[in-house]
Amino acid sequence: MALNVTQKLIKDHLVSGKIEPGEEISLKIDQTLTQDATGTMVMLELEAMGLDYAKTEASAQYVDHNLIQVDSKNPDDHLFLESSAKRFGLHYSRPGNGVSHPVHMQRLAKPGKTLLGSDSHTPANGSMGMFAMGAGGIDVAMAIAGEPIYITMPQVFGVKLTGELPDWVSAKDVILELLRRYDVKGGVGKVIEYYGPGLDNLSAMDRHVIANMGAELGATTTVFPSDKEIKNFLTQQNRADDWVELVADKDATYDLHDEINLSELEPLVAKPSSPGNVVPISEVEGTPIYQSYIGSSANPGYKDFAIAAEIVKDKTIAPGLSFDVNPTSRQMLTNLVKEMHIASLLQAGGRLHQAGCNGCIGMGQAPATGRNSLRTTPRNFPGRSGTKEDSVFLSGTEVAAASALTGKITDPRKLDIPYPKIKDVKNTNADDDLLDAPLPYEEAKQVELIKGSNIVSIPEMGELPDTLEIPVLLKVGDNVSTDEILAGGARVLPFRSNLPEISKFTFEAVDSTYVERGLNTKEKGGHAIVGGFNYGQGSSREHAALAPKYLGLHAVLVKDFARIHWQNLINFGILPLTFANEEDYDKLKEGEVLAFNDLRNQLQQGDSLTAKLQDKQEEIKVEHNLTPRQKDIVLHGGLINWTKARQQQKN
Amino acid sequence: MALNVTQKLIKDHLVSGKIEPGEEISLKIDQTLTQDATGTMVMLELEAMGLDYAKTEASAQYVDHNLIQVDSKNPDDHLFLESSAKRFGLHYSRPGNGVSHPVHMQRLAKPGKTLLGSDSHTPANGSMGMFAMGAGGIDVAMAIAGEPIYITMPQVFGVKLTGELPDWVSAKDVILELLRRYDVKGGVGKVIEYYGPGLDNLSAMDRHVIANMGAELGATTTVFPSDKEIKNFLTQQNRADDWVELVADKDATYDLHDEINLSELEPLVAKPSSPGNVVPISEVEGTPIYQSYIGSSANPGYKDFAIAAEIVKDKTIAPGLSFDVNPTSRQMLTNLVKEMHIASLLQAGGRLHQAGCNGCIGMGQAPATGRNSLRTTPRNFPGRSGTKEDSVFLSGTEVAAASALTGKITDPRKLDIPYPKIKDVKNTNADDDLLDAPLPYEEAKQVELIKGSNIVSIPEMGELPDTLEIPVLLKVGDNVSTDEILAGGARVLPFRSNLPEISKFTFEAVDSTYVERGLNTKEKGGHAIVGGFNYGQGSSREHAALAPKYLGLHAVLVKDFARIHWQNLINFGILPLTFANEEDYDKLKEGEVLAFNDLRNQLQQGDSLTAKLQDKQEEIKVEHNLTPRQKDIVLHGGLINWTKARQQQKN
Repeated sequence: MALNVTQKLIKDHLVSGKIEPGEEISLKIDQTLTQDATGTMVMLELEAMGLDYAKTEASAQYVDHNLIQVDSKNPDDHLFLESSAKRFGLHYSRPGNGVSHPVHMQRLAKPGKTLLGSDSHTPANGSMGMFAMGAGGIDVAMAIAGEPIYITMPQVFGVKLTGELPDWVSAKDVILELLRRYDVKGGVGKVIEYYGPGLDNLSAMDRHVIANMGAELGATTTVFPSDKEIKNFLTQQNRADDWVELVADKDATYDLHDEINLSELEPLVAKPSSPGNVVPISEVEGTPIYQSYIGSSANPGYKDFAIAAEIVKDKTIAPGLSFDVNPTSRQMLTNLVKEMHIASLLQAGGRLHQAGCNGCIGMGQAPATGRNSLRTTPRNFPGRSGTKEDSVFLSGTEVAAASALTGKITDPRKLDIPYPKIKDVKNTNADDDLLDAPLPYEEAKQVELIKGSNIVSIPEMGELPDTLEIPVLLKVGDNVSTDEILAGGARVLPFRSNLPEISKFTFEAVDSTYVERGLNTKEKGGHAIVGGFNYGQGSSREHAALAPKYLGLHAVLVKDFARIHWQNLINFGILPLTFANEEDYDKLKEGEVLAFNDLRNQLQQGDSLTAKLQDKQEEIKVEHNLTPRQKDIVLHGGLINWTKARQQQKN
Repeated sequence: MALNVTQKLIKDHLVSGKIEPGEEISLKIDQTLTQDATGTMVMLELEAMGLDYAKTEASAQYVDHNLIQVDSKNPDDHLFLESSAKRFGLHYSRPGNGVSHPVHMQRLAKPGKTLLGSDSHTPANGSMGMFAMGAGGIDVAMAIAGEPIYITMPQVFGVKLTGELPDWVSAKDVILELLRRYDVKGGVGKVIEYYGPGLDNLSAMDRHVIANMGAELGATTTVFPSDKEIKNFLTQQNRADDWVELVADKDATYDLHDEINLSELEPLVAKPSSPGNVVPISEVEGTPIYQSYIGSSANPGYKDFAIAAEIVKDKTIAPGLSFDVNPTSRQMLTNLVKEMHIASLLQAGGRLHQAGCNGCIGMGQAPATGRNSLRTTPRNFPGRSGTKEDSVFLSGTEVAAASALTGKITDPRKLDIPYPKIKDVKNTNADDDLLDAPLPYEEAKQVELIKGSNIVSIPEMGELPDTLEIPVLLKVGDNVSTDEILAGGARVLPFRSNLPEISKFTFEAVDSTYVERGLNTKEKGGHAIVGGFNYGQGSSREHAALAPKYLGLHAVLVKDFARIHWQNLINFGILPLTFANEEDYDKLKEGEVLAFNDLRNQLQQGDSLTAKLQDKQEEIKVEHNLTPRQKDIVLHGGLINWTKARQQQKN
């Protein structure tokens, strides 16, 4: 049977399941990627799992998000990550080395491999003929520990590229065109695979741009073939040996299909405040801007900066405008310096920032109130820039640079200059001076983790007891969000590696007494929470399960769950239960004690449990929808314990 | 009579007083410098004064402190400063253009002129044969409005330089040597003037290093002659016409004297946590460091970075070390890029930051807990790096770069390489693309100030009434600090341009009811505060006077005052009174009403006032120590009103 690239990658890594859309499959993970915002918890999870040494072919810990060190928290995190990388056998990319996605592509990506990353733009490395997915931190920790990842087999959406990009139109416009056609949910449940003759005119970094922002379509991932262009790219990185060819079979088919004729594209712009809000540039031309921002993993390439430099060379940016230049990797920055492109950007009035994610994730460069910002970043969600009521437009580099000169959104085709042709640069900086290699096992074993005062190990959590007698400590209504369970934001996030501290914010706005009352139940057998429909909607943050677990939560009994939070409850060993009869919701009040007897047996036997309401001397039936594997996880007390047990079996 | 350079500068600018140490003199100010952390309040003061257009020869508003834009506050400040600069006829240096001191030196400094700046390192421009002083914001606002600055005539401390710096020893070691000899209070009440044959071997930027850190000696300022080296420097800036010669007369004398033989100096290091804690490098050699930091206004020159680049060229920094490179101006950064020095720094593993003050003022790059940082910055006060219990060493560039390679404090003379000779660079970037020139008067008049939501005009404050009947709202003991009156720190400082908001923190830790009670008195005639000895000690922050003034404070009656706060009370129109009989302190309780009749007349007549204690039907005598000028200021209701009246007279 003729296979497309996606099917080949999945077939090569299939551990269980059938390769049919909608089926649960599990895949072997070859490589992982973690960044510093999510990585500290992953490393604490590896510690709690008792991991001896990474089981992956290559795992890398990057420091690119929290580069602003206004106090000791961020640098303490960096030291912890460095020591963890040494301890567990990971690569460690030091602050200043750049954004994870382009650096990984340059130094570690390999065609034909799988990559799991605790960052939603991990699919960027799909540009290299990899199957690269974003996931939650615990999933990545599991992958490092050698466990497969479980996903629902997606549909493969083939996008045929024909023609050649016109001058002043770039890869960014390809993905903006798809967002224009399908909007931000158009890729859900799908892998987007590009093929066709148009690929010959897209460099590896062009493909990175397209794969990166596939995340904005909601796609599982984006896949490109590994062809001669990828071979060239790896050769430039002194890694020609890492190349293998990986292309679709001649008669390969796709579940869904569309086509883009590159020759017909024009510069596009996403208006505030969604990457799906795409219009031709003519519709927004002349809009005044206060900031032009280039860089980010959605326009990370040498060419992206070089073209901008050529556009502004020997000119001066508009009065009052901030032209923010954000290099994406140390390697590329050094090349840009050597080829005098940075000099051109500076002389025109550019403001050169350190290599990293920076303003793309709201770490600096927030725009002023009431002003428009034009950015080459992947996202313009409201407030993501750091400014509450911001107004951020997205475009490619050509538009951003042209607009920097005029102070308003400008069609670069109307600049009276020829389209800059950027010649291939001799890459003399393909080194790993700031990308530390993993220590050999014998050395790694000796490394002590370095924990600043704000980094606290995850406490041991027991397995599911056979008997639970737990009071309902909190009863809530419908649509409780993870933000209500545990808020995000600048007040709470600094404690993301400090479970005892962050748990103090649990249900803060719902019931300020919950934390203290929860802690009181902890030694006495724990407690339950009762809720209505759609419990745990919103952000996928794992701390919304981990924090109440720390406070003694053993079971959540609701009318139904939001899917991701349901999965997170299982992952952290909390029983996710639904009422067999929804009317029973009314029977339960705060303080009511729920008793489960012979619980471990009951759970293993079927899909429902009997819970006794002790005060009422009455029994109710509750259900769960756990697979055998999920039951096993809950019985162990969560994924950490489950993996720990498996690690010990293997050793 | 033969004059030294300091005396010539003072004589040329004397408005009043006698040029004798200890006498009060006033000086005409030719130029001013404000940065963004202090500048917003200066601009609000200019607005409140009703300033029409700057009366100085050149005033410049720089943006170099608050470059981290994690929300809209900083960029809103930038827009406000830009519009203010346009409105009042100032130069405006945009974010990304660099640190005020080197940029001012490059583009605006003129030998023979006076410069007043709202930044304690303003004396750096003493390197150009200027009389350059730091001052409070309101003093700079006054200077922009054409008023002279009042100071106590300092002693002139002549330091004769002989010999020539050995290889691996730099200008930084000259000022560290003076700090070693005299410590951080050794310059108080003095101007340090350098002269002698050793000057021939110190470039203009070398002199900047020395003048800059004269602030660490507590000196009023530092003065260098304007000689051929300054002519060269200005020529490189395409400003040869701005040069005038200014050297000491042949037989000039100094009030105090010392000598440094440059040939005998060796690399020096200031240990934590004072710039005066200076030792020869041999005493700290081998101390492990986690961070090496180059840049700041204390090592801002092209040569400082170029030497570091040559030292690390084709090598790699130590494992685990962060090598933070902080360019000080866009002009210099562009030159460094063009000459491939930035490429060398990056290839060695340097982490290149945007041009600005950055970590020198705790804006990023804080070290990890328990780790040593080695910096070329001027100050290592405890916690200034952003990390609470930090451990910061200070050195010159050579030591910092050598130590970056080894990971421990290293004597660069022991590197097995010749001392890099840095050749003069052809400066092709002496432009003002990011330094906006003042608007012409007619255009400036049309400009509206742009105020983000956190920038609030200073409310009008009335003149001193003729009758005051004010309750004692707060009675405190001895040694109340300005920190207790109004805290600094990250919680309070963001509201520095928003008087109604910042005033809510007044006396927060002393009496949490003060703010509300104060506001209640505001419309009813205001209130008084009673205190003991040394009232208002500590930080010089003006908001500690302005905030309670906003809440209705009219008079402070204490046993005695800390000097700077006393001056600030006068500046903002609050009566600063002391008990004629200290025992009267005991008679006054909170709630007691103090009545002053015929107040304006009483104040003008003598040094004491009669206050009636209304409840006790008793009179007490209180004193003030105001000069006629200070009386006039208090009668007007503070400097803003006083200057406003003078502006109106002149128009």
